[in-house]
Amino acid sequence: MQRPIGIFDSGLGGLTVVRAIRRRLPAEAIVYFGDTARVPYGIKSPRTVTRFAAEACRLLARHDPMCIVAACNTASATALPALAERMDVPVLGVIEPGVAQALATCPAGPIGVIATEATVASGAYRRAIERQAPEVRVIERACPLLVPIVEEGRSPDDPIVRAVLEEYLAPLADAGVAAVVLGCTHYPLLKPAIAAVLGPDVPLVDSAEAVADGVAARLGADGCLAHTDAGAGEAVGPWQFFVSDNPDRFREVGGRFLGAPAEPVTLVPTETLSATPDPVEEAT
Amino acid sequence: MQRPIGIFDSGLGGLTVVRAIRRRLPAEAIVYFGDTARVPYGIKSPRTVTRFAAEACRLLARHDPMCIVAACNTASATALPALAERMDVPVLGVIEPGVAQALATCPAGPIGVIATEATVASGAYRRAIERQAPEVRVIERACPLLVPIVEEGRSPDDPIVRAVLEEYLAPLADAGVAAVVLGCTHYPLLKPAIAAVLGPDVPLVDSAEAVADGVAARLGADGCLAHTDAGAGEAVGPWQFFVSDNPDRFREVGGRFLGAPAEPVTLVPTETLSATPDPVEEAT
Repeated sequence: MQRPIGIFDSGLGGLTVVRAIRRRLPAEAIVYFGDTARVPYGIKSPRTVTRFAAEACRLLARHDPMCIVAACNTASATALPALAERMDVPVLGVIEPGVAQALATCPAGPIGVIATEATVASGAYRRAIERQAPEVRVIERACPLLVPIVEEGRSPDDPIVRAVLEEYLAPLADAGVAAVVLGCTHYPLLKPAIAAVLGPDVPLVDSAEAVADGVAARLGADGCLAHTDAGAGEAVGPWQFFVSDNPDRFREVGGRFLGAPAEPVTLVPTETLSATPDPVEEAT
Repeated sequence: MQRPIGIFDSGLGGLTVVRAIRRRLPAEAIVYFGDTARVPYGIKSPRTVTRFAAEACRLLARHDPMCIVAACNTASATALPALAERMDVPVLGVIEPGVAQALATCPAGPIGVIATEATVASGAYRRAIERQAPEVRVIERACPLLVPIVEEGRSPDDPIVRAVLEEYLAPLADAGVAAVVLGCTHYPLLKPAIAAVLGPDVPLVDSAEAVADGVAARLGADGCLAHTDAGAGEAVGPWQFFVSDNPDRFREVGGRFLGAPAEPVTLVPTETLSATPDPVEEAT
C-alpha cells in the first residue's frame, strides 16, 4: 500500500494546496480532510482551533500518512507545536514556507500579509518574518470578508470584491509593500483582483507552491517518495476526500479550488471526530 | 427556583431575541447558549444543523427551562420538528412569528425575505407564507455576506455595506415588495442601511419582537410566567450565557446585539456538548 500525504483544512481552501502538491508530486497518494461542519476557523479561539486540528490529524493518521500538512493558515498559526507533539509523523504548516518565499523574492521588504482575524491575532507571520529577517518591516491586515466572498463564488472583477479589497489593501499600498503574502488558502482565488488593486509590480506569494516544494524536499530527504519527482507519462496517485458536513457542496464548490472534480468524498460527522479522546489533553 | 426561558443561536445573533424578550418579560430568568465554536449554521447541511441544535437544547434542558426558543433562523428552518420530538418543553422558532407579523402588516404582499443560504434553501419561509396566505407572492434572497459584515462591526453607512445591500435587495425592490422579513437574527443591526436602500415605505419585520410576543402568549397561557407582564419598578430576572468558544469575544461583540453587557458568560466546549448521546438518533 502506498502511504499518502495527509492534508487538512477548515474547509475547502486547502484544496489549493492539494492542487499544488499534485502538480509537484503527481505520483503521490493524497488523503484530504475538510472540517466543513465547523468552518471557518479564522474567527475562533486558539484552544478550539487546536482541538479541531488535532481531531483532523487523528482522522488522517488512520490512513498511515507519510506526513501531514496543515493546509490552513489559522491552524498553522495557532496549533502547529501542539500537533507536532501529538503526532508520530512530521506536521508541516503553511506559514514558514510562505514567509521564506516572500523574503526570497523581496529580501528588504516591507512585506505585507493579509489573513484571517485569528491568524493576524496570533502574530505567527510577524514572528516568522522576524525570525528569518529581523530588520524587515511587516504590515498585516485581517480581511474577514474575503473568505465568505470566495465561498460565495464572486468573480475577481465584481465591483464589491474590488471595493472590499481597496479598503483592506490601502494600508499595505500606503506602506509601499514590496511583496504580499496571501495568508489564507482562500485568497489565491482572488489573485487577479488583488493584483489589480496593488498593481503589477507587487509579487503575491501564494504559499501553496512553497508548501508543495517543502513537502517534496522533506519527503525526498526522508526517502519516502513513491517515485522521484514525476515527469510526463508517469502514473498519477490516488486521492480521496473526507468532510465533516455537506459532501455535495464540497463536490460543487471544491472543483473551483482544485481545478478538477473533488471525488470521491466521504462524510465523517463531528461526533465521530470527537469520539476518540485526545491523548495529550487526557494526560494533563 | 425560577424556571428560565431557554434561548439558543449559532452565535451572537440570538441576543437580539434575548433583548426583545427581556423588554417584553423583564421579570423572567433567561439562559442563553451561543454555539460560537461552530458558527455559522447558515452554510451547513440540515443534518448537521439539527445535530448541533439538539445538543444546544440538551444543554439548556439542564436548567429546567419553561420553553426553548430557537433564536436562529437556520435552526428554526431546518430542525424544529426534530427538536420538538426530542424535548419535553415547547420549542419555539422564529419563522412563523415573523411571517405572521409580515402578513399582519401587509396582507396582500408581495413579501420579501432575506436570510442565509441554508434558510433560503430550506424553503421554510416560503412554506410558512403559503400556509398562512397561499395567494401572497414571496421573493427570497440569500445574503451570505451580511453575517460576516455584521460580525466585522461595520456601520450602516459604510459604503461597502451599502453596495452589498443594493445588490442583494435589487430583486426585492424590482418586485415592489410590500414588506421585508429580516430572516436572520444578525440583520436587525443593519436595519438603517436596509431601510436606506428600500426606502421608508417598506416595513422591515424583525422577528425578535414577534417572537417575544409569542413567548409571552405561550407562557401566559401555560400559567408559567414568574409575574404577569412586568411594569415599572418590578424586579428584573437573572440571565446567564453559555458559549462553546471564545467567551471574551462574546462579551465584546455581544454587547452590541444585547444593548447591555453580556455577563456572566461560561465556556462549554464542543466535546462536552457532544458527550451526551442523542436519544432519538440512538434509538434509530
